[in-house]
Amino acid sequence: MKKYLLLFLCCGSIVGANAQANRDSLVIRQVADEILANGKAYEDLRVLTKTIGGRLAGSPQMVKAEQWGAATLRAAGADTVYFQECMVPHWVRGEKEQAKIISNRRDFIPPLNILALGNSVGTGAKGVTAGVIEVKSFDELEAKKDQIKGKIVFYNYAFKSNFVKTFHSYGDAVKFRGSGASRAAKYGAVAVIVRSMSHSTDNNPHTGSVNYDTTQPKIPAVAIGLQDADRLSTRVANDPSAKVYIRTMCQKLPDTIGHNVIGEIRGAKYPDEFVTVGGHLDSWDVCEGAHDDGAGCVQSIEILRTFKKLGIQPQRTLRVVLFANEENGGRGGAKYAEIAKAKNEKHVFALESDAGGFTPRGFMLECTPEQRAKLVSFKPLLLPYGAYDFDEVGGGVDVGFLHRALGTPMGELSPDSQRYFDIHHAASDVFENVNRRELLLGAVNMAGLIYLVDQYGL
Amino acid sequence: MKKYLLLFLCCGSIVGANAQANRDSLVIRQVADEILANGKAYEDLRVLTKTIGGRLAGSPQMVKAEQWGAATLRAAGADTVYFQECMVPHWVRGEKEQAKIISNRRDFIPPLNILALGNSVGTGAKGVTAGVIEVKSFDELEAKKDQIKGKIVFYNYAFKSNFVKTFHSYGDAVKFRGSGASRAAKYGAVAVIVRSMSHSTDNNPHTGSVNYDTTQPKIPAVAIGLQDADRLSTRVANDPSAKVYIRTMCQKLPDTIGHNVIGEIRGAKYPDEFVTVGGHLDSWDVCEGAHDDGAGCVQSIEILRTFKKLGIQPQRTLRVVLFANEENGGRGGAKYAEIAKAKNEKHVFALESDAGGFTPRGFMLECTPEQRAKLVSFKPLLLPYGAYDFDEVGGGVDVGFLHRALGTPMGELSPDSQRYFDIHHAASDVFENVNRRELLLGAVNMAGLIYLVDQYGL
Repeated sequence: MKKYLLLFLCCGSIVGANAQANRDSLVIRQVADEILANGKAYEDLRVLTKTIGGRLAGSPQMVKAEQWGAATLRAAGADTVYFQECMVPHWVRGEKEQAKIISNRRDFIPPLNILALGNSVGTGAKGVTAGVIEVKSFDELEAKKDQIKGKIVFYNYAFKSNFVKTFHSYGDAVKFRGSGASRAAKYGAVAVIVRSMSHSTDNNPHTGSVNYDTTQPKIPAVAIGLQDADRLSTRVANDPSAKVYIRTMCQKLPDTIGHNVIGEIRGAKYPDEFVTVGGHLDSWDVCEGAHDDGAGCVQSIEILRTFKKLGIQPQRTLRVVLFANEENGGRGGAKYAEIAKAKNEKHVFALESDAGGFTPRGFMLECTPEQRAKLVSFKPLLLPYGAYDFDEVGGGVDVGFLHRALGTPMGELSPDSQRYFDIHHAASDVFENVNRRELLLGAVNMAGLIYLVDQYGL
Repeated sequence: MKKYLLLFLCCGSIVGANAQANRDSLVIRQVADEILANGKAYEDLRVLTKTIGGRLAGSPQMVKAEQWGAATLRAAGADTVYFQECMVPHWVRGEKEQAKIISNRRDFIPPLNILALGNSVGTGAKGVTAGVIEVKSFDELEAKKDQIKGKIVFYNYAFKSNFVKTFHSYGDAVKFRGSGASRAAKYGAVAVIVRSMSHSTDNNPHTGSVNYDTTQPKIPAVAIGLQDADRLSTRVANDPSAKVYIRTMCQKLPDTIGHNVIGEIRGAKYPDEFVTVGGHLDSWDVCEGAHDDGAGCVQSIEILRTFKKLGIQPQRTLRVVLFANEENGGRGGAKYAEIAKAKNEKHVFALESDAGGFTPRGFMLECTPEQRAKLVSFKPLLLPYGAYDFDEVGGGVDVGFLHRALGTPMGELSPDSQRYFDIHHAASDVFENVNRRELLLGAVNMAGLIYLVDQYGL
């Protein structure tokens, strides 16, 4: 290190810049060595997923996860750990959903594998039985609007296979889950079934939030697995007597108290400037929330642990935030931004990891062109660890609130997305589907970027 | 397309080059759409792994796999399909290996999970029982050379965690598997146990070939799982009475007949120039050989299928080669090069996929600087499909023979390597650990590179 210091003092700015890049590269190498050899993120994730499991806002598991988060941040060496209270929605799934095809034909028909969509109303104990209108687009819904009254609308839009980045497929298809119920209710539908947003090869249904349009009646909405969606489609096309029975006992209870869990390392030089890094602590109830978003939480904690372990003292205050209630409300992210604004805090950068714990490929960014140029200038230092793609515009849902409230530049880790929608919001989002090295390598790249932003600002 | 043609005719060479790049980009997009939506590689792999399974050279499964390869190439639309005979080694594992720690202490000790190394001699039915000398380097072996006579040498070198590209960890550690037996035999060891080349979190032993130095006695060599390696190490350090019993019934039979399986599309313009793409058809006996190297075989066949389906007529003859006996001999690759040389064939490029069916990151290349520059110039056309890393020097083992015999430029698909050594040469290399989209995306990048090399030569 002395050699570099000497060079820096003796020579002009170009050599100085090179020396600085060399020093940064050595620090990031040290960070990578520590995380890849001694990283705790994988073990932390095992505890979160296997001893707590699914942890939807308002559930007892949410409370346990908050306690886990605080304890884990303390163990990682945070200077301070605290809770930030916010009201969160409290939706409960209730009894396991039931669904089946009913037909005048005498053939055996296995039950349909469904999950109620988050925030959906239930059918009540009697369930709903009705004929099915299948549509593959909203245009087709409009064209069939006169047939819909009293029926179940089945949105059977196939997840597109030809986007290389699968989040584009999700962006393309998710409208049916989000607004399909209200658009069908407008024409008198009694329920909707939505083909899962996935190109998995299994039959797991994938849940996720429905967003009701308050001007329309709220009708039950469920997701269906891919194999069952194909089976239902064939049946509807060939059996005029076919009806579907759906029974969901989900309900919305009054809002309850949840918390963002926050751990900090106080900045040495600019303690009143903040660099935020986080994931969301809640997950859907039907899975372990390992990739979504246990991974983002443990990666963020790993950064703090590694900085402490290696004695890397940030200049700005580093805040690790485990956000409440991303999945069906976004209240944690909103509260964090609200308080930051009320306190007139200066936020330099906010990074989220909420796209799975898969092998990292880069970062999505949303900021000014100047800030982007600066962030992209760090690319050569991260390339050895797999981050090369800085082209996508975006940031995490949670830090998005801060971005909109304060204009804070934001980013999100971009892991490889090929496997993500196999497991997203489905029973298969479990610890076993996370690879230790991929998870840790994501943390390495995040730590590298956070270190550089802290050093140079934006 | 007409628009681009017009541009090309009207304007100068820069615009012409752009138009060509646009046309190429459209062709590769078409290739990607076809493979991602209709690709057969995953189903082909299911058949190979689930109906045939492990297929070591000389085994009955090798013969079945050759038949499968020919039938699958024909179904994919190859103009011609043929076999290229070569003699292959015939090593058989025999009865399941046994190993245990024997101690004067009365505590219960579970058996050790081991696999004989490929081409290893067996212990015979009585097995070998001896004290254990643990070493972590060849230097340590030399330092302990006087203690080794009559003992089992235990190479307990930990797979390094801090290489981001895990093949570097493999390159660093594999010497103990390759030459450890003969180096220990030199000092009178009776057997060797080698810590598996893996950073998996399970206890599967990972096999692979041992290379005996013919000037030394051949002694039995086995791989041990990671958890058991740690257990053995602790025992050896703390229990002076500890011995290990090993029984392996493997043996080398006389060489037998195997085949490279080859499918071609005849080149429209230069039928006597060849572009080779392939993987190796053999695999270790203890797994399904899904990633190693069923993936490379089905990806190579996928390219041929896609070109035929889309009517992409190569200018040069495209040869898909499913090589025989990569794992414990390399005889298929050697034979292919020998025949190519004897026939004085003109080989333009040879590409292999033998690093797993994981999400692609680029290509290793081994060729002249001019050829490399040309190959790297294709990068922008492949970047949208995930290939950005063209920096590593290398090519597949099989096409390496051609490279050395004829100087043919060669390459190898570089998939993400984080998961590879979890499953490499172990019982966990099964179909279930291959992701459909990752496998297909590898084929997309290979097809793109092959298309461009065929169009522009090197």
